[in-house]
Amino acid sequence: MAWAHSLNRVIGETQRFEHSLGLHGKNSDGGCVRDDVYIDGFVRSVRAQKEIHFVTLSDGSSLEPLQAVVPVSQAKGVTIGSAVRLHGSWTPSRGSGQSHELQVQSATVLGPSDPKTFPLQKKFHTPDYLRGLPHLRPRAPFNSLLLRFRSELIASLTRFFTDRQFNQTHTPILTSSDCEGAGEVFHVSAGDPSPSSSSSPSTPNTPKTSNHFFRRPVYTTVSAQLHLEALAQALGNVWTLSPTFRAEQSNTPRHLSEFYMLEAEMSFTDEMDSVMDLVEDMLRHICTDLAGSRVQTEVFAERKGDRATYLHTAEQVSQRWQGLMQKKWPRITYTEAMKLLESSKKEFSFSPVWGNDLTTEHERYIATEVGGGNSPVFVTNYPRDIKAFYMRGSAEDRNAPPPGMTVDCFDLLVPDFLEIAGGSMREHRLEQLQESMRARGMTPTISPVNDTKPATEPTENNLDWYVDLRRWGCPPHGGFGLGFDRLVCYLTGVMSIQDTPAFPRWYGRCDC
Amino acid sequence: MAWAHSLNRVIGETQRFEHSLGLHGKNSDGGCVRDDVYIDGFVRSVRAQKEIHFVTLSDGSSLEPLQAVVPVSQAKGVTIGSAVRLHGSWTPSRGSGQSHELQVQSATVLGPSDPKTFPLQKKFHTPDYLRGLPHLRPRAPFNSLLLRFRSELIASLTRFFTDRQFNQTHTPILTSSDCEGAGEVFHVSAGDPSPSSSSSPSTPNTPKTSNHFFRRPVYTTVSAQLHLEALAQALGNVWTLSPTFRAEQSNTPRHLSEFYMLEAEMSFTDEMDSVMDLVEDMLRHICTDLAGSRVQTEVFAERKGDRATYLHTAEQVSQRWQGLMQKKWPRITYTEAMKLLESSKKEFSFSPVWGNDLTTEHERYIATEVGGGNSPVFVTNYPRDIKAFYMRGSAEDRNAPPPGMTVDCFDLLVPDFLEIAGGSMREHRLEQLQESMRARGMTPTISPVNDTKPATEPTENNLDWYVDLRRWGCPPHGGFGLGFDRLVCYLTGVMSIQDTPAFPRWYGRCDC
Repeated sequence: MAWAHSLNRVIGETQRFEHSLGLHGKNSDGGCVRDDVYIDGFVRSVRAQKEIHFVTLSDGSSLEPLQAVVPVSQAKGVTIGSAVRLHGSWTPSRGSGQSHELQVQSATVLGPSDPKTFPLQKKFHTPDYLRGLPHLRPRAPFNSLLLRFRSELIASLTRFFTDRQFNQTHTPILTSSDCEGAGEVFHVSAGDPSPSSSSSPSTPNTPKTSNHFFRRPVYTTVSAQLHLEALAQALGNVWTLSPTFRAEQSNTPRHLSEFYMLEAEMSFTDEMDSVMDLVEDMLRHICTDLAGSRVQTEVFAERKGDRATYLHTAEQVSQRWQGLMQKKWPRITYTEAMKLLESSKKEFSFSPVWGNDLTTEHERYIATEVGGGNSPVFVTNYPRDIKAFYMRGSAEDRNAPPPGMTVDCFDLLVPDFLEIAGGSMREHRLEQLQESMRARGMTPTISPVNDTKPATEPTENNLDWYVDLRRWGCPPHGGFGLGFDRLVCYLTGVMSIQDTPAFPRWYGRCDC
Repeated sequence: MAWAHSLNRVIGETQRFEHSLGLHGKNSDGGCVRDDVYIDGFVRSVRAQKEIHFVTLSDGSSLEPLQAVVPVSQAKGVTIGSAVRLHGSWTPSRGSGQSHELQVQSATVLGPSDPKTFPLQKKFHTPDYLRGLPHLRPRAPFNSLLLRFRSELIASLTRFFTDRQFNQTHTPILTSSDCEGAGEVFHVSAGDPSPSSSSSPSTPNTPKTSNHFFRRPVYTTVSAQLHLEALAQALGNVWTLSPTFRAEQSNTPRHLSEFYMLEAEMSFTDEMDSVMDLVEDMLRHICTDLAGSRVQTEVFAERKGDRATYLHTAEQVSQRWQGLMQKKWPRITYTEAMKLLESSKKEFSFSPVWGNDLTTEHERYIATEVGGGNSPVFVTNYPRDIKAFYMRGSAEDRNAPPPGMTVDCFDLLVPDFLEIAGGSMREHRLEQLQESMRARGMTPTISPVNDTKPATEPTENNLDWYVDLRRWGCPPHGGFGLGFDRLVCYLTGVMSIQDTPAFPRWYGRCDC
């Protein structure tokens, strides 16, 4: 029978392959020869000689392509970008670039390609150029690798949470709750805003329709947290890996309009240390799980030439993984961090002042001083006035101002990247939550859900249902959120977050 | 050390638990006694007696609650709906309802609940009533079970695809492509449609802003298929479990405005049988994987009393699972199905006519006749005029009209429910795709992406990029889509799809 496999089973694993097929050492030079091999893939390059064409082939399953030697008689249509099926013998290579190559007997073009117009030529394309071709970009070797890495990361996370009996949940995308009152949300409507007639902006055809499909204004979610809390109150520990949205008008290496958030919530948990332990265990697990895998080896491969401009070095990325695999990560309070900053001899552009948020410069100092430039660092118990309304007031805070001035929250700072995750204990007590909302100008209603005006009917305040959770059986609980696309950046050394999702969306860009 | 566990570790698994702790047969009646046990959970019911209160407790990890016997001195605040921590001894029960119960020494109220206002009393609540309380609904026993079942289903699917080296992908939610031209899409805008001032519908404050954030009209996706095809052309086999949206104004047991779609795409695949094999293998895998698990046992539990009105019987659900675990499912063409319908003695409300779609009545007849009332049935090769533009024309179709009249597609019909999944080979040839689009009044442009007007700039036709995929190396490929929430309905016997997601959205309803 013929042998057809994806490239990752062939390239670089020839030894293992030889072993499993019992072919080891069958030919004179110690390599294997295997006849009657079929390989499907996309042509990455063609180097034409008089009698033969050297063709490299990729199928997305490995970073390095396979080399095929195609006789001229079979080379018609085997052009850059084409999809082909090659049939031949897998033999030790006489060239220096690879241990083996495919000596092709016949080639079938399954999807032709005009080499003159194909936008991905055999040369370096800048990330910016590739972003202009989102439908073709996944075929570029490193972009393809990033998508494979993402896939294995998802599988690893699913195993982690499944093993710990966390329930994976599908939190909603459309929501009538504007989570943190941030305001930078996308609005969703079912009306037809006549996309082709953008020349007539005065047509009053949206707001009425839009508000009526769901009987209230609806947004794409900015965080699954509030819904996760409701679920944790029923199911125990829960998690989700779910799309979230921000309508920020930014075009930076750290912002997307649509991105995946990994969020988890722990129920019946009083100690914030348990939540930080979960973050630590999870990040340590995925690194340990993927360390030594093919995909990780490829991510760590030497970054040469032009590509190196857009990637952190392999050494730097390797250090990040080592940091995440360290045993115990330091945890210091915001107030301790402030003291450290104040006592530092370093000149900061912004003086550290208790009550202000930490600047990037401050965070970098803390990460380096406390984490030794290698370990991640948790900074906890920030001042309540600079944090979200739902965070629990700290009962006790080592070396801190009086109880109530700080909240039980944490940021996780990692070397190079700084804040990568954040979490908190949630205010589970009704009165304290209402007080916190009032202090921020939010207006919680007092009437419980089964009064004349239930929370499920449209009201001025779209967070009534969230307050409601505290009326009946709300135990202490806490959780965290981590930007999944940022995590992919961090673990692969990709500099711009616009290069990690398959189809990135940001201000001005929603192609395809 | 104290022993604290989730209920699913305690209830119904006492034997296993005794065994693992070496407690088996330690007390006179053969059951175990375990002191110093801590249990966290939510109070489902309280039956007060003079000296003691009988309390049932749930934590979402099992359908059945735990019974606790709380002395009056400890019962203060242990009210229905409250979140409590109970400390006591796990002992054989003298009551008839359970083998063991918790003899409580001390109870701590972690989240109080006013029993007079708590909306989930110890009685049957209709699904409709619970839909009005989406933030509390997950605490209802059967709803909680559904969410746990969903979690295990996701994990099982992830294992299935990971083992087969399919890449899990995150296809975009926001898209500028209106997949099937269906029109029933939600529009997304960044402008502020002044939610509080719904009284002034004439304010012309949306269309302009909305079209400008992304420089083009943007929708929430109706299907990941087109994007999956682009990814399959780079990564090989791919899958996604991703939210999709329909702005249909329907309130039925089968429709949601937001739902999860399971979609997969196979690359370098010429035979549609391979795609149907994948669907079969996948559904057989999840059933085999979950058969005998705690969550499946609970789903199959006897449906008594009022709840039975809203659920199919346990016997019926069990038959569905058996059908899905059958070895080989029949596959017949649409034309064969038509002949079967035409030759039937049954009177149909709508006569079967070649060229028309199958009605529910037709599908039911086919499912019963061909599947024997038990096995799922694939119906393939429908007329091209009633199917989507991207489906590949059939080269040969047994007993069919001339080639080109039908397309390589399939619907999967299952007993009781009928269509649960659909798939097709995709038209991978440029000219044939353009021809199909023209025939449907769609206007593909001819210019390739790197002409003066690249596909990534806004154009009249938002599917240029999809056509573009055929210009360079598009091998034969095909895939399928399956409504994940419908699958949960089917496997659990829940009658309304509005009861399967945690936070369902449909016409007029987007609470929370």
